[in-house]
Amino acid sequence: METKIAIQGIKGSFHHQVAEEFFAAPASLDECMSFESLVTSLKENKSEKGIMALENSIAGSIIPNYALIDHNNLHIIGEHYLDIHMNLMATKGQKIEDLREVHSHPIALLQCAVFFKKYPHIKLVESADTAETARRIKEGNLLRIGAVASPIAAKMYDLEILAAGIHTVKSNKTRFVIVKTQNKELPREEINKASVKFELDDTPGSLATVLNVMNNCKLNLTKIQSMPIIETPFQYSFFVDVVFAKYKHYEKAKKILELMTTHFKVLGEYKNGKL
Amino acid sequence: METKIAIQGIKGSFHHQVAEEFFAAPASLDECMSFESLVTSLKENKSEKGIMALENSIAGSIIPNYALIDHNNLHIIGEHYLDIHMNLMATKGQKIEDLREVHSHPIALLQCAVFFKKYPHIKLVESADTAETARRIKEGNLLRIGAVASPIAAKMYDLEILAAGIHTVKSNKTRFVIVKTQNKELPREEINKASVKFELDDTPGSLATVLNVMNNCKLNLTKIQSMPIIETPFQYSFFVDVVFAKYKHYEKAKKILELMTTHFKVLGEYKNGKL
Repeated sequence: METKIAIQGIKGSFHHQVAEEFFAAPASLDECMSFESLVTSLKENKSEKGIMALENSIAGSIIPNYALIDHNNLHIIGEHYLDIHMNLMATKGQKIEDLREVHSHPIALLQCAVFFKKYPHIKLVESADTAETARRIKEGNLLRIGAVASPIAAKMYDLEILAAGIHTVKSNKTRFVIVKTQNKELPREEINKASVKFELDDTPGSLATVLNVMNNCKLNLTKIQSMPIIETPFQYSFFVDVVFAKYKHYEKAKKILELMTTHFKVLGEYKNGKL
Repeated sequence: METKIAIQGIKGSFHHQVAEEFFAAPASLDECMSFESLVTSLKENKSEKGIMALENSIAGSIIPNYALIDHNNLHIIGEHYLDIHMNLMATKGQKIEDLREVHSHPIALLQCAVFFKKYPHIKLVESADTAETARRIKEGNLLRIGAVASPIAAKMYDLEILAAGIHTVKSNKTRFVIVKTQNKELPREEINKASVKFELDDTPGSLATVLNVMNNCKLNLTKIQSMPIIETPFQYSFFVDVVFAKYKHYEKAKKILELMTTHFKVLGEYKNGKL
């Protein structure tokens, strides 16, 4: 049976592009209009796996998605890095000079801010989704309105690309994770990365001690982030990603950290994605 | 001369409330419609100090503001924690039952979602700013439309508070920082907190070593966040906040870290805010 994949956004979104690149076999998609509804799709078994953006090289972590994974006890079973290419597109036959407004997701507009400074006559309008904006232009056959979206969106909604690669920072990678409600996916020989969460007492040096343990166990830290604990503001929990050569090294560190920290939790064990 | 303070938003915003609480003497305000224009106000000497939200206990760090401070070489010269209280307000003489719509910033509406579930007849409408919505209701003398905003907004725009403290999570603190283009503010005896940034080679254990140094120098970590380095995606720089009893301890750590890390930078040295 074909795997059903929940993506954030509609076909033509960057999440759709990740689904195409990550899964070898074609998958049918559940288009979710928010990350919350993507979680619902998984929990109600409407889809088996979900794709969530988690971090990009410009804005950093997408923190609410960490909270969604954590609170809903989802498991990260894979990751994929996508090089985001932003394109300005519109109904065919128009030039940039014809456009009065360009609509897109606020982050996409932000990433193209330098480009649009050259076109002060264009009003930038925030919308919910890059691909949806492209579809809306197609369906309404709208003139004078452009969208900033993925190449796949231009193809899906038959729009003309007026300018390609208009994002300011050319190296614009976004890290996506594949999530499930269960963590049974890979044999341990294939696992070389893990995402964990823990809390620490406010004793001086407690985080240094934890990182020393990880280092002694041959884990290499690839990401760390402290997050306020909601019920006790500005006490912090930590989200940490580690890579390792051998699962047994990670397993040993995990046992120690379960004793050293409070609320230790594994968010996922998976194979690292290619940068 | 009165100090001119740049705030994000207009009078009646939560940034305005921070200005009132943080500065003993009354200050005149430069109302900036975005964080970017707040930075411009400082750089063009239209204002001397600026107030920026940096972190809240629900959504975590406001990462783009870290980038703004860093890229524009601003200095953090103080911090202030504000307990955000959301209030439903409207033109005087109305009851909640009279309202047809409530307008506010999407985050504010989100934080009050549970409250509004009790009033399904009210349509929630997203607007750009909490205080601006309050002002619009006042100026248009609008009926049947409410705003979710700060107590100070109700006062400034002469609206009646129909329900106070309507946010779901009662402990809703936001951390604001006071920024300047120069870092000459406090004598060193009064400084007990610093925000620094550095990059590390990808050698295993390098972060643990840095935290050990901090711990040995009697610095206590209050926040850590790894951020992808834009030019070299997914190599990380670190934003770290530390508190200390004596400036000379911090000074010693700073000298060591300048040698141990690359691109070591002080974002600010200041007195910690009361939680």
